[in-house]
Amino acid sequence: MVENEAVAPGAGMALDISEQPAGYAALLDAAGAITPIAKAIAERAPKHVVFVARGTSDHAALYGLYLVETRLGISASLASPSTMTLYGARPDLSQALVVGVSQSGKSPDLVEVLRVARESGALTLAITNAPASELATVAELHIDVLSGHERAVAATKTYTGELLALLMLVEAVRSGTGVIEADERARLGALPQLAADTLADTGPTELADRYRYADRLVATGRGYAYATAKEAALKIIETSALSALAYSGADFLHGPVAVAGPKVPVFAVIGTGPGGKSMGDVLDKLASLSAEVVAVSPFEDPRASFRLWVPEVEERYSPLLDILPLQRLARAISLGRGGNPDAPQGLTKVTHTL
Amino acid sequence: MVENEAVAPGAGMALDISEQPAGYAALLDAAGAITPIAKAIAERAPKHVVFVARGTSDHAALYGLYLVETRLGISASLASPSTMTLYGARPDLSQALVVGVSQSGKSPDLVEVLRVARESGALTLAITNAPASELATVAELHIDVLSGHERAVAATKTYTGELLALLMLVEAVRSGTGVIEADERARLGALPQLAADTLADTGPTELADRYRYADRLVATGRGYAYATAKEAALKIIETSALSALAYSGADFLHGPVAVAGPKVPVFAVIGTGPGGKSMGDVLDKLASLSAEVVAVSPFEDPRASFRLWVPEVEERYSPLLDILPLQRLARAISLGRGGNPDAPQGLTKVTHTL
Repeated sequence: MVENEAVAPGAGMALDISEQPAGYAALLDAAGAITPIAKAIAERAPKHVVFVARGTSDHAALYGLYLVETRLGISASLASPSTMTLYGARPDLSQALVVGVSQSGKSPDLVEVLRVARESGALTLAITNAPASELATVAELHIDVLSGHERAVAATKTYTGELLALLMLVEAVRSGTGVIEADERARLGALPQLAADTLADTGPTELADRYRYADRLVATGRGYAYATAKEAALKIIETSALSALAYSGADFLHGPVAVAGPKVPVFAVIGTGPGGKSMGDVLDKLASLSAEVVAVSPFEDPRASFRLWVPEVEERYSPLLDILPLQRLARAISLGRGGNPDAPQGLTKVTHTL
Repeated sequence: MVENEAVAPGAGMALDISEQPAGYAALLDAAGAITPIAKAIAERAPKHVVFVARGTSDHAALYGLYLVETRLGISASLASPSTMTLYGARPDLSQALVVGVSQSGKSPDLVEVLRVARESGALTLAITNAPASELATVAELHIDVLSGHERAVAATKTYTGELLALLMLVEAVRSGTGVIEADERARLGALPQLAADTLADTGPTELADRYRYADRLVATGRGYAYATAKEAALKIIETSALSALAYSGADFLHGPVAVAGPKVPVFAVIGTGPGGKSMGDVLDKLASLSAEVVAVSPFEDPRASFRLWVPEVEERYSPLLDILPLQRLARAISLGRGGNPDAPQGLTKVTHTL
């Protein structure tokens, strides 16, 4: 691939990351495409929403789960595809909405789960960046996240595109009309500029050099911020081959906190709402273990040694902003170690597992 | 605690581990206690099973999810308690069975979820090692895993007690009568001896010394074996403060495989059925990255450098045996590094999070 070799390492990922504000604007402009899908879902009134996804898209699905349970009051879960694809389980999904989330729309196991679910009477929806993909085709409904071609293997703009698509969909279902309500539209409309402001901060590149020699780190967050912690850890693993553990704040205290200490930095995603407030126990515990804490937060906290600044927004919008400095940090750590975040060793864009 | 200080480090965990065959026998002898619970569940015919758990018990719940979907054909999920406890979500659970799994029965967030679920009309079940606990009391139904007092902070025998209780419950529901069918009872009856055989193998203690200087490792498995991989990683984290990542075989290939290489051993749990067979791709990939693979498997595989022997059983019984050498390995690594696996730094037996 001569084109890629001609450009500097990390140039592709930098472009992908930089395009996120414009990506938000494009998706918001296309809100009309979500209206008939939201109407179809509201009419079917599913009793349960099952998300099926892998890797980065699984973190978007986790965000979707929080939105569905807290904004729609419908129970939601992340499927374990292998019960169906490996063991032939055929649970009754006739009253469920089954949502496949995948950038490429090509994972055979997700295609199989959506096919089986649709046959069994479930309402099926695919959220992809590939409207001609098999996943988009096999599902009854499809939302295109409109992120455009992603250059780097590690997903960035397609992840946040999935987040925004899920948020817009849930708000459109919630309104009852399929059209997002005006005050919510106004808040969503602020996201492109907020994302641009977040990306203008120089914190992530300054901080990356500090972790050049780190072997391992932990990312943690609760509630809406848990998806961000998981995605940050995966991004650092993919680009820099560090061992990055991710835990919800609650699970972290249930055992894994044993790894924390002076040599293992902890990235704590601390938002404005109940999820952020509940991280107080985690910060106290980490302080007692002399762990170095990097807060991803709109607020200063004396228990954190460093802070990656993010805007203050209602908690459910935070995942669309909080991941941005962490994507940049992952890229910068990779470059600092002589890696190429655009094409990490051993990874390919689409993974075929059944 | 003078009693504990008088004994050798790791003596408590060794005893806990050694009591698992007898624990299986005791629980199997008490199968009659599960019959009325299985009948109550069969009569209610839940449309969905929601597990709620933290830490080690969450891995038992993951096993329960596979059992419920593949053996009962009912869709199952692991709850994210914080949607209810932090954000006040009240999803409709009136047609669900909500199962809280907790050794101590004391986690306030699980108690809260079961309380809310019961109020909303869900059938609720607690599986604990503490019949007088708040979780056992708040739930309509309760199964005591009968593991006796656990000495070490890191859970071992209470974990496998939860696994067996879940297996017995699912098989009792499956039979339709609340009584486990005779052929299944015979297979279950073999587990105490198989567990004793597994614990008699010297492999884990021999292998532990090899990883004395390791900083990080990965545990992976698919299907039923995924719970074992997650629990093995947590046990090593808790006792030895290594950074142990855990992934399903499918998710591992979607990005995290970037951490694999000559300096990061991979523990691959490879069973007899579809889950085990599907690990072939993972082993091929790891071989191409020169990663050292330790297979936890009844079979030799040329792609693995080492093997921890476990008996050949149908895949759904494997989690009750495959974790045993990994518990011993975790304990031995901790001792080799001068730690005390009975009381790792910074950990307590019960964690209070809301």
